[in-house]
Amino acid sequence: MRATAIRIIGIDPGLRRTGWGIVESDGVRLTYVASGLLTSNSEEALAYRLRELYEGLCGVLASFKPQEAAIEETFVNKDARSTLKLGQARGMALLAPAQRGLRVAEYAPNLVKKAVTGTGHAEKRQIQAMIGFLLPKASFDSADEADALAIAICHASYRTSPQAVAARAGAGL
Amino acid sequence: MRATAIRIIGIDPGLRRTGWGIVESDGVRLTYVASGLLTSNSEEALAYRLRELYEGLCGVLASFKPQEAAIEETFVNKDARSTLKLGQARGMALLAPAQRGLRVAEYAPNLVKKAVTGTGHAEKRQIQAMIGFLLPKASFDSADEADALAIAICHASYRTSPQAVAARAGAGL
Repeated sequence: MRATAIRIIGIDPGLRRTGWGIVESDGVRLTYVASGLLTSNSEEALAYRLRELYEGLCGVLASFKPQEAAIEETFVNKDARSTLKLGQARGMALLAPAQRGLRVAEYAPNLVKKAVTGTGHAEKRQIQAMIGFLLPKASFDSADEADALAIAICHASYRTSPQAVAARAGAGL
Repeated sequence: MRATAIRIIGIDPGLRRTGWGIVESDGVRLTYVASGLLTSNSEEALAYRLRELYEGLCGVLASFKPQEAAIEETFVNKDARSTLKLGQARGMALLAPAQRGLRVAEYAPNLVKKAVTGTGHAEKRQIQAMIGFLLPKASFDSADEADALAIAICHASYRTSPQAVAARAGAGL
């Protein structure tokens, strides 16, 4: 890693699939580091599905040692049951980097789209195409991985701005 | 602890206040062990509020070493934002006992009420009065602690029944 670069993990949480993507930014250039997808066994009990995802995410954090984390702020349109499920996965995804003392920033979905494509109303396909352009070495198989990379890219752009809501430096906790 | 007794923790999760209550059951008698309230600093970032609650809960589990855990199944009536918050706290509360390999059972709210008072439509006041009767040594200052004890009592009654939904033995994981 370059001395001045910061390594960022973006996380797109879900009980079925949690995407993660790691980039490095030196303030000018972005570099792809890694990305992947964590899944949970839907036949397991909820607590153990969360544990499976949590341990996977802790493993990713231990392996790649990102210094900051970012997650999308969720605006909820679905039914209450889906919202609760998403909330549970989100709790797990926020907890893992906080346990390691990482700053965990949250971004509104429109800002994530804007950071990647220049517009807050981009379609999934546009976002994925722009990620391929911004991170030519990126390889991702799933939309969840692409979304996680988009969140990491957003944080690279906005980490020092007021749009990084609910951020908290790990130092001094 | 009596050789045949099982020690159960009930958890009532919330981002602001998470109640916990521990009882022992030998299948006939119930004994109060401990209860308390975990709170998070609302000025902290969400991820760090979850971490504060999680570490508190892990501390309770390490101190009192319950063998099984129970949590209320949530039916959601509130707005989406509250549901998401509750989900996040719930994810944290499910994860802590799962990380220690405990079975984590979930119960419908009506069953919790029924287990404590004999009726699924009891009021808060009735529930608290019954907890005082069932666990004369219990001392609790908050409704969240009382709710957590009610969930533990419910699990003592239903832990071997099919109503213990989404339960999972910790052994063999």
